[in-house]
Amino acid sequence: MKRVLLTGASGFVGRELPPLLLARGYEVHSVGRQEVTGVNAHHHCDLLRDDLDQLAAAIEPTHLLHMAWYAEPGHFWSATENLEWAAASLRLILAVGKAGTRRVVAAGSCAEYDWSRPMLDEQTTPLEPATLYGQAKVAVFRLLASVGPQLGLSFAWGRIFFTYGPTEKPGRLVSDLLDGLGRDETVQLSAGTQERDFMHVSDVAAAFAALLDREVEGAVNIASGEIVSVRHLAERLAGLAGKQDRLAFGMRAMQPGEPARLAPSIERLRTEVGFVPQFTLDAGLRDTYQRRQSPSVRKD
Amino acid sequence: MKRVLLTGASGFVGRELPPLLLARGYEVHSVGRQEVTGVNAHHHCDLLRDDLDQLAAAIEPTHLLHMAWYAEPGHFWSATENLEWAAASLRLILAVGKAGTRRVVAAGSCAEYDWSRPMLDEQTTPLEPATLYGQAKVAVFRLLASVGPQLGLSFAWGRIFFTYGPTEKPGRLVSDLLDGLGRDETVQLSAGTQERDFMHVSDVAAAFAALLDREVEGAVNIASGEIVSVRHLAERLAGLAGKQDRLAFGMRAMQPGEPARLAPSIERLRTEVGFVPQFTLDAGLRDTYQRRQSPSVRKD
Repeated sequence: MKRVLLTGASGFVGRELPPLLLARGYEVHSVGRQEVTGVNAHHHCDLLRDDLDQLAAAIEPTHLLHMAWYAEPGHFWSATENLEWAAASLRLILAVGKAGTRRVVAAGSCAEYDWSRPMLDEQTTPLEPATLYGQAKVAVFRLLASVGPQLGLSFAWGRIFFTYGPTEKPGRLVSDLLDGLGRDETVQLSAGTQERDFMHVSDVAAAFAALLDREVEGAVNIASGEIVSVRHLAERLAGLAGKQDRLAFGMRAMQPGEPARLAPSIERLRTEVGFVPQFTLDAGLRDTYQRRQSPSVRKD
Repeated sequence: MKRVLLTGASGFVGRELPPLLLARGYEVHSVGRQEVTGVNAHHHCDLLRDDLDQLAAAIEPTHLLHMAWYAEPGHFWSATENLEWAAASLRLILAVGKAGTRRVVAAGSCAEYDWSRPMLDEQTTPLEPATLYGQAKVAVFRLLASVGPQLGLSFAWGRIFFTYGPTEKPGRLVSDLLDGLGRDETVQLSAGTQERDFMHVSDVAAAFAALLDREVEGAVNIASGEIVSVRHLAERLAGLAGKQDRLAFGMRAMQPGEPARLAPSIERLRTEVGFVPQFTLDAGLRDTYQRRQSPSVRKD
């Protein structure tokens, strides 16, 4: 029997996970303040405040998939909530460890790396976060790596790069671009020369589900391997919308400290996890554009 | 008005702090599971489980002096409790930050440093802990350093080296030595070649009290500057007890990974904090030996 305790199931990536986990034979127990449907059971719980020992002892999960974190666009990089989520994550790991859980997979971030490096590799790139968000993620990663053996936990840590998809909430790159183009506005962008690895949210979720089922240990970059400029991405989306003339590059300043290129190694994900994304960038952007036209798609 | 929230006031270092803080004009509010006397108020509270926002809002401390941690001799290096205390420390820092506290001083450890370095310096020595205890302390230190400015907190982090004193509980070097000599046993020791910086517990506490009153920011080594071998220390204690023939060196193995020499820089403590220890090592060991003879001295 595989029973997974899933946090963050109402989030952007997390909401894709229940059907993937059910398909892999897990009994899915979601945990959080927001009601989640399509799972075997939802346990209403405030991870920041409630007794997690009690929660874990009641569920007795064999697996933990921990996706929850503070993720408010524009705020999460430096919010003090990062410390609350680091503390809650540590308490949750201890709680499931004591309850007999044997495998933990949690969401890390590309923000953990020293962004000045030409290639971001799980084994060799220094963890020198430029942000409080990155610091908090690194703290949990390091402590989980240290405590895992004592708790009898196998663990993997999926470092998410740049996720896009139909259900993105406002305040993010793709959502704001498509919303602006949809209103037929001129969309003001930075120069758009930043190069990033973008991955469709369905693939990000599928990669986590695969990671949970394997015995791969430690950090694994969750990325597509397709590295393009923000300008390229924007132009593809504008092309899909037939609004190529609505992009105004160079009208916004870059964020201070914004790195020119963030290029993940995806060797571990491909060879050790054996994961291949379903979407190319083109196909993923088309899917995003088309499904976003539907008024029934949730965008919060 | 200076009002300090003091944690760990029933611990080895912490119990020395109330009179020092009162003498410096603080209103002292101790917090913890064990009742503490000799303070303005004790607040019964389980830092690992209780609502710390409520606690901080009720006390409204101007200062936080956070000494509490899991410290069971022989166990604390690798205990999972280190994660609980890291989580509690993060929650406490956020709670006092929101309650208007302006200065935080907390207990760090020499275990945060890469022990292979010839000199352990606050500004230049890499933080590469060999133990879970060290990892957990580093995690809190880094997050406190990152979040401090946003919370309007000035902060200092006192890295404790090796503390001895009359009230040491069993299971520690000096206490076990004196207890063994007191029973007229032959005391079995390692080769004793390890060189360490030992500081009397009264001086450690006085250094923290001084640190709380200054505006010095960041990590500060709390150490005496007198670096001697374990053998030297043991021989001095045996000399005080008149039992020089009762020491059997080389009868125990060194701990795996035990560093040959841990030598702190004490420049910041001396020049920036302006702190000078009251005890030389000889005077401190004499004080420890003499006061430990008294049955009324607490040793738990």
